[in-house]
Amino acid sequence: MKRIAFLLLAVATVAGVAAYRTRASAHANEDTAPIFLTDVPPGYRDWRLVSVAHEEGELNDIRAILGNDIAIKAYREGTLPFPDGAIIARIAWKYVPSEENDKVFGRRQSFVAGSTPSWGLQFMVKDSKKYAATGGWGFGQFDKDGKPNLPEAVFKKCFPCHQPVKDRDFVFTRYAP
Amino acid sequence: MKRIAFLLLAVATVAGVAAYRTRASAHANEDTAPIFLTDVPPGYRDWRLVSVAHEEGELNDIRAILGNDIAIKAYREGTLPFPDGAIIARIAWKYVPSEENDKVFGRRQSFVAGSTPSWGLQFMVKDSKKYAATGGWGFGQFDKDGKPNLPEAVFKKCFPCHQPVKDRDFVFTRYAP
Repeated sequence: MKRIAFLLLAVATVAGVAAYRTRASAHANEDTAPIFLTDVPPGYRDWRLVSVAHEEGELNDIRAILGNDIAIKAYREGTLPFPDGAIIARIAWKYVPSEENDKVFGRRQSFVAGSTPSWGLQFMVKDSKKYAATGGWGFGQFDKDGKPNLPEAVFKKCFPCHQPVKDRDFVFTRYAP
Repeated sequence: MKRIAFLLLAVATVAGVAAYRTRASAHANEDTAPIFLTDVPPGYRDWRLVSVAHEEGELNDIRAILGNDIAIKAYREGTLPFPDGAIIARIAWKYVPSEENDKVFGRRQSFVAGSTPSWGLQFMVKDSKKYAATGGWGFGQFDKDGKPNLPEAVFKKCFPCHQPVKDRDFVFTRYAP
């Protein structure tokens, strides 16, 4: 149970998780379309920054939220809902103290990005038709090698968790200027 | 004294502070060139992500380190020293709890980017000739309105603090893949 709760926590993260490309050929209609993706959106590491965050607790990570061009434009212009094609990436790293930095500061105070955890890479992809049942968003999670690593049952928990920010088109992260 | 110590702490941050463009006309030779810049490098908010960090203590900020194209290429290829033209930006925001996120997690655990502090924007600019006296790096700090806000005397403390990472060309922040 603890493991499942942890997985759910990992899913219900700030930017959420997302779907990018699904195996459409396997699905005859939208009702059966999965809400998760099977491939990492290409080039995401070059996308522009939306904001940063730190999660304590079992996650204990530090994270950056990036957006593709469509997402960044929508963020900056305050466009809601996000247009189709918008993708939000959430990269997480383990939250580790930096002895090197601390020596300069003269005290323990600096925390930096460490290795990539199993929930390292998450995406939300906007496709208002394909993902109509989940607010127009598909979700995905990948490990550092780009392998999807959450069971479908867990993905069904994504959208309910994003309901509290329905007025921001189900996206938790706000743009940091 | 406390205020001065705080300013120094603000300067000796992970990515450091940087110079971008100095009033060259006011300086006849390199010996008298200032190590700080007077203008924010244009377009920095569109640069790609190097890494993220959190500083506790008096700073109590969460930050993103971005690099211009020259800097990112050098980081990814492991090029040291950084080539002339490389600029590293460090954006800091106040570290604030997110009640909205915490409600979803069911506990206090989520910290996000708040408002911009006085040390919100810092840069390191590589120009091996202009800034030869400080390892080829110039330093700059700006507030959220793009106004430089540190006295020259404080900038003289930048380079000594960066000496411990001389083998990484005086740059603290490591690239987070």
